[in-house]
Amino acid sequence: METSRKQETGLKEEQKWERIALGVWKVRFGTPSAYTPTAHRSNEIKTEALSVLSAEQGAEPQLPFGTDDVNIKQTTRGIVVTLPMNTSEDIFGFGLQLQSVNAAGRKRYIKVNSDPKMDTGESHAPVPFYVSTAGYGLFVDTYRYATFYMGTSAEKGASAMKKEVNQPHKEFSESALYAFKRAEEERKVIIEIPSESGIDLYFFAGDIKTAVQRYNLFSGGGCKVPMWGLGMWYRVYGGSDQEHVKKLASQFRDEKMPIDVIGLEPGWHSHSYSCTYEWSNLFPEPQDLIDELTQSNYHINLWEHAFVYPAAKIYDKLVPYSGDYEVWNGLVPDFSMEETCEIFGDWHEKELIDKEITGFKLDECDNSDYNPSCWSFPDSTEFPGGMDGEQMHNAIGLLYQHMLEKVFHKKNIRTFSQVRSSGALAAPMPFVLYSDLYSHKEFIRGMVTSSFSGLLWAPEVRDCANGHDLLRRVQTVCFSDHALLNCWRIPNAPWKQVDIQKNLNNELMEEAQYYTDECRKLFELRMSLVPYLYSAFEEYQKTGLPPVSAVVMEYPQDEAARNLDDEYFFGKDLLVCPLTLEDGTSREVYLPEGNWYNFFTGEKIEGGRRLVLEADWNEMLVFARDGALVPVAEPVICVTEDTVFNITVKSFGTNKTGSCVLYEDDFVSFNYESLVAKKQINVTVGDNGKFIVSGAKTSTKYHFLNCIVKD
Amino acid sequence: METSRKQETGLKEEQKWERIALGVWKVRFGTPSAYTPTAHRSNEIKTEALSVLSAEQGAEPQLPFGTDDVNIKQTTRGIVVTLPMNTSEDIFGFGLQLQSVNAAGRKRYIKVNSDPKMDTGESHAPVPFYVSTAGYGLFVDTYRYATFYMGTSAEKGASAMKKEVNQPHKEFSESALYAFKRAEEERKVIIEIPSESGIDLYFFAGDIKTAVQRYNLFSGGGCKVPMWGLGMWYRVYGGSDQEHVKKLASQFRDEKMPIDVIGLEPGWHSHSYSCTYEWSNLFPEPQDLIDELTQSNYHINLWEHAFVYPAAKIYDKLVPYSGDYEVWNGLVPDFSMEETCEIFGDWHEKELIDKEITGFKLDECDNSDYNPSCWSFPDSTEFPGGMDGEQMHNAIGLLYQHMLEKVFHKKNIRTFSQVRSSGALAAPMPFVLYSDLYSHKEFIRGMVTSSFSGLLWAPEVRDCANGHDLLRRVQTVCFSDHALLNCWRIPNAPWKQVDIQKNLNNELMEEAQYYTDECRKLFELRMSLVPYLYSAFEEYQKTGLPPVSAVVMEYPQDEAARNLDDEYFFGKDLLVCPLTLEDGTSREVYLPEGNWYNFFTGEKIEGGRRLVLEADWNEMLVFARDGALVPVAEPVICVTEDTVFNITVKSFGTNKTGSCVLYEDDFVSFNYESLVAKKQINVTVGDNGKFIVSGAKTSTKYHFLNCIVKD
Repeated sequence: METSRKQETGLKEEQKWERIALGVWKVRFGTPSAYTPTAHRSNEIKTEALSVLSAEQGAEPQLPFGTDDVNIKQTTRGIVVTLPMNTSEDIFGFGLQLQSVNAAGRKRYIKVNSDPKMDTGESHAPVPFYVSTAGYGLFVDTYRYATFYMGTSAEKGASAMKKEVNQPHKEFSESALYAFKRAEEERKVIIEIPSESGIDLYFFAGDIKTAVQRYNLFSGGGCKVPMWGLGMWYRVYGGSDQEHVKKLASQFRDEKMPIDVIGLEPGWHSHSYSCTYEWSNLFPEPQDLIDELTQSNYHINLWEHAFVYPAAKIYDKLVPYSGDYEVWNGLVPDFSMEETCEIFGDWHEKELIDKEITGFKLDECDNSDYNPSCWSFPDSTEFPGGMDGEQMHNAIGLLYQHMLEKVFHKKNIRTFSQVRSSGALAAPMPFVLYSDLYSHKEFIRGMVTSSFSGLLWAPEVRDCANGHDLLRRVQTVCFSDHALLNCWRIPNAPWKQVDIQKNLNNELMEEAQYYTDECRKLFELRMSLVPYLYSAFEEYQKTGLPPVSAVVMEYPQDEAARNLDDEYFFGKDLLVCPLTLEDGTSREVYLPEGNWYNFFTGEKIEGGRRLVLEADWNEMLVFARDGALVPVAEPVICVTEDTVFNITVKSFGTNKTGSCVLYEDDFVSFNYESLVAKKQINVTVGDNGKFIVSGAKTSTKYHFLNCIVKD
Repeated sequence: METSRKQETGLKEEQKWERIALGVWKVRFGTPSAYTPTAHRSNEIKTEALSVLSAEQGAEPQLPFGTDDVNIKQTTRGIVVTLPMNTSEDIFGFGLQLQSVNAAGRKRYIKVNSDPKMDTGESHAPVPFYVSTAGYGLFVDTYRYATFYMGTSAEKGASAMKKEVNQPHKEFSESALYAFKRAEEERKVIIEIPSESGIDLYFFAGDIKTAVQRYNLFSGGGCKVPMWGLGMWYRVYGGSDQEHVKKLASQFRDEKMPIDVIGLEPGWHSHSYSCTYEWSNLFPEPQDLIDELTQSNYHINLWEHAFVYPAAKIYDKLVPYSGDYEVWNGLVPDFSMEETCEIFGDWHEKELIDKEITGFKLDECDNSDYNPSCWSFPDSTEFPGGMDGEQMHNAIGLLYQHMLEKVFHKKNIRTFSQVRSSGALAAPMPFVLYSDLYSHKEFIRGMVTSSFSGLLWAPEVRDCANGHDLLRRVQTVCFSDHALLNCWRIPNAPWKQVDIQKNLNNELMEEAQYYTDECRKLFELRMSLVPYLYSAFEEYQKTGLPPVSAVVMEYPQDEAARNLDDEYFFGKDLLVCPLTLEDGTSREVYLPEGNWYNFFTGEKIEGGRRLVLEADWNEMLVFARDGALVPVAEPVICVTEDTVFNITVKSFGTNKTGSCVLYEDDFVSFNYESLVAKKQINVTVGDNGKFIVSGAKTSTKYHFLNCIVKD
């Protein structure tokens, strides 16, 4: 693939192709910006993992087109890239997309924008990366608001031979009126990167799954999360004071509701729009609160945003390291500069992390076009490090993650945190995306789409129409990257009252006990799967395969799986088909070829088809693959230093070739990086049909029930 | 004002200030694009009218800031302009805006985009022009997707003195959470024009009204419309064939429903997406249809879009004059090139205009971000004339208007046509904007907002929820620039059946006769005001004051009028407060200071206040100014060569100083441009309380009832 060619149009520039790793190539055109995702990356390419991944595939990986098919030119507006696209090609990626999965025939506009209501590509975390069923992935290394036209257009003359007329009918209908077809011949991928005079493109060979894995390994591999981060999260009422938080926390323990993390909302700041990062009068003795919660084995997550109020202690220091426009009277720190990260990071370390805060939630970092326009800084803002407002809008969520991850890493503490915008090469970042939008179907779709671009996504439970809605939403979060209930609008737990106004009035539901019990069961279900999910995260780190993934990623050759936006894999073996309030107690599911087993009942269902299945409000549709071995733990209330998981392995189907792996380390630090501290425990099924567990004899974290433990 | 200054930041470029006319200045920075609204203008600046307008104001007009306050710099992204903005300043303009009126504190993104559902500035016709209550207007001469930040942001350090914290409360609410204020000090107007290395800005001195007038006169003054264009319009069912159109047309005459124009929808083309511009098999003898309609004094308007299907006779000729990407298999003609206009215009002239077609409706020219993405061409498209896709998206509607207006002008025929996108300097174009959106409130708001930027807007009647909705919507169109019923989805008139499915099944409403009669009354009301509206268009042409205008334009000093988005002036003396279905039979109105008179009953109401008034479903809230003289004609079925308007002048109030003017020419050609062929008829009230009409003795078009006719 190493070659170069002259452009026929635009400025005459060479394309320089370079092999980055097995199955990964870079092509450079012109002089790229100094401010790009790769320039700011804090994780190295996992070259070795890439070579192993490729080796598994056998032959040398190939792109489905030649270097001559990649056309790049300079225009007044920026850089234009064109690529071939065939008529049957489907396209996935572009980061978190809440409105559609398949981008074929669509325009995707890579601009971080909160709450867009229309399907333009904008989102909390659009990513200039896609994978194609033609057998490749492409990452465009830019923070610019790039536009990707994914086969929307055909070149002039492509239709010149079409001369038949479509004589209209009296039996007129709108669909007949618009009975034109998408461009079928000679359609193109057209990518436009504005304001640049150079660009780096990275191509990844492989089918949907492999190309995504290569992109994630190129990014540095999946993130390492603390085991507690995979437990249940509860964000408290915005008007909570110290006593209210304590009361809730103690109630959870009394009622045996598994909760690992308590999140505090804006009210903990003495000024929150913009932020002071100091405790308010609602929390007169914060260390007392922290100590009490920590002793009860809670982890604490603090809400913030990045705009620094003048009363903040770090304000004066940050003035020279901030953009030239304010947001909400506050500074906009330039996190591309080391000085900024030191000032901001140092405050967080000394004042918060050193005092046992284990994570943050970065809100409001996602631009503003669809909110009143004072929600962010102008695109024309100049930052002292050299970036402009456009670049910073697409970068600020990412740069914040790099900044904070570095602090935690330095302290040898794993965090699992939240952020409302993200972007390229984010796989190694232990941050989960969330949204203020509320549609349950969109939240499910987000799990499908975010899996193509190295992003984690929380389909969090917030407002619920009624108890059934609560159950359906909790069911979904229990099978997601991040099991979060965000109760910032209600002082009492939602399982006691879903109606916001009644909750505020402390009026509880008649069925409060029923919903408490059902929620507890679901939380316990989640807790039973924490070790399984932890293994999926380990896989993410080692091979780039995300813990939650689209069905098409597991079945890249199955055309029927391509457009599925309402079911997904949770870990490597569980296919989850969540129901929503609108679905009621049945929905259509698609099961790929092969046998599938109801995760709860073991019932066998033949796949390779769509079918309608029933699930009562407190039931779910989760299916295990034929041969799957799923480690299920006895649920714990929360994950502590001393937690030992009592594991039962559930085996599905007659195909006994499956296996599962559990990973043992301290679950909270980076000591595993020395390798010595990490153990791999393998479970298989022996000839006698019994489970065989290798490597578990010395385990202090996993105890296997009903298994033969070897080694 | 003639001065120049060096920039302190960015590339060092001079700002060159130049006086264009009295009250109008241009400032040039760098080297502007060759492709701009002023470069493509086909109408000259009305310098003389500008000097008269200024003379009326007395002193030499001034801008509210010095040239030093205008900061322009070059960045990687393009050009950035900053201007001062005070805290009480309100902003109007930016073309057709359906979602909000006042742009203060908002971002406006000047990108032609169909059907945006959120308030970003995008619309069918955004215009890079605004007026400020500080006393100036600004036009940025570009087709680029410029962004205007209208006081959204304060510069870094503006809030540095704010140190008070907003200790949160337990009585928490969302509004308390977001209790931050808009930037109050030092806020700025920030304008960013991408991809350019130079720009021309045009400043217009004056209050809201005068600055708008100056902009419109700078554009070339308001358009000259044919009198018939101000009558009632009816667009027929999309599945209509020749016989159905004839039947409808004859029914209208039989039932004495005033209708001047019949519009045909896509079905008249033999292929409509993209277009052939040739008659389909539904119209086997088009000339027969045209002749029959013309003999019944109808004018015919034809739907089209600009994308040329390969079977079109002009296809081969247009290939070299089209952009390098297709839309719906069709060419995208480059109307910035003379050759294109000749080929496209020539076909329209010879095949359609010469055969008595008197107007067109240009659909689908308004981009696509919010529709499936194959709806238009990429922004990166290259056009042979030198423009790119971005520029063409903002220009194509305008360039089409210039092209077509030139053909009609050459043939000495006035047209009144429709277009779904427009932009800067459009006042002289006899084209009315319309939309596929349906909200009645938004349609009313469109009349308010379009009046600030030289645009005409049709709040057309389309789908109606019920008969009451039909009446409310027809009432609004009767007091608009363009009285259009767009019945493309129903074969029978809506006054016979508003339900689409029943209409398609030819089931008529029980109350069909009632709604027929009520609609006829409203159409007759419209016809009675056609001469009055014609005078308003003449005023538009001469002084730049639009025929429909925002209340704040008439009362620029009245702060209570600034945000009104649901009432407007129709002509110079009638204040219209339309009701919608949601309003029911009463609504709140605001009447500015002074006495007002119900246009229908003469009832006097004191102004300077808001009040709730009743209006039954078949009544309207229309008020005449104190002293107004309104010429009311006996309604005619349609306007023909021989029409004589029998005028009664209605006088309102005790203040007898008012006057009105009627204009006489042939109502259809441009012969008036020789001046000889045009007469001005003035109506005043004499000392005896009787009307005095000057200049009417030789009139062949107006006959005055109950007036003393002098001269």
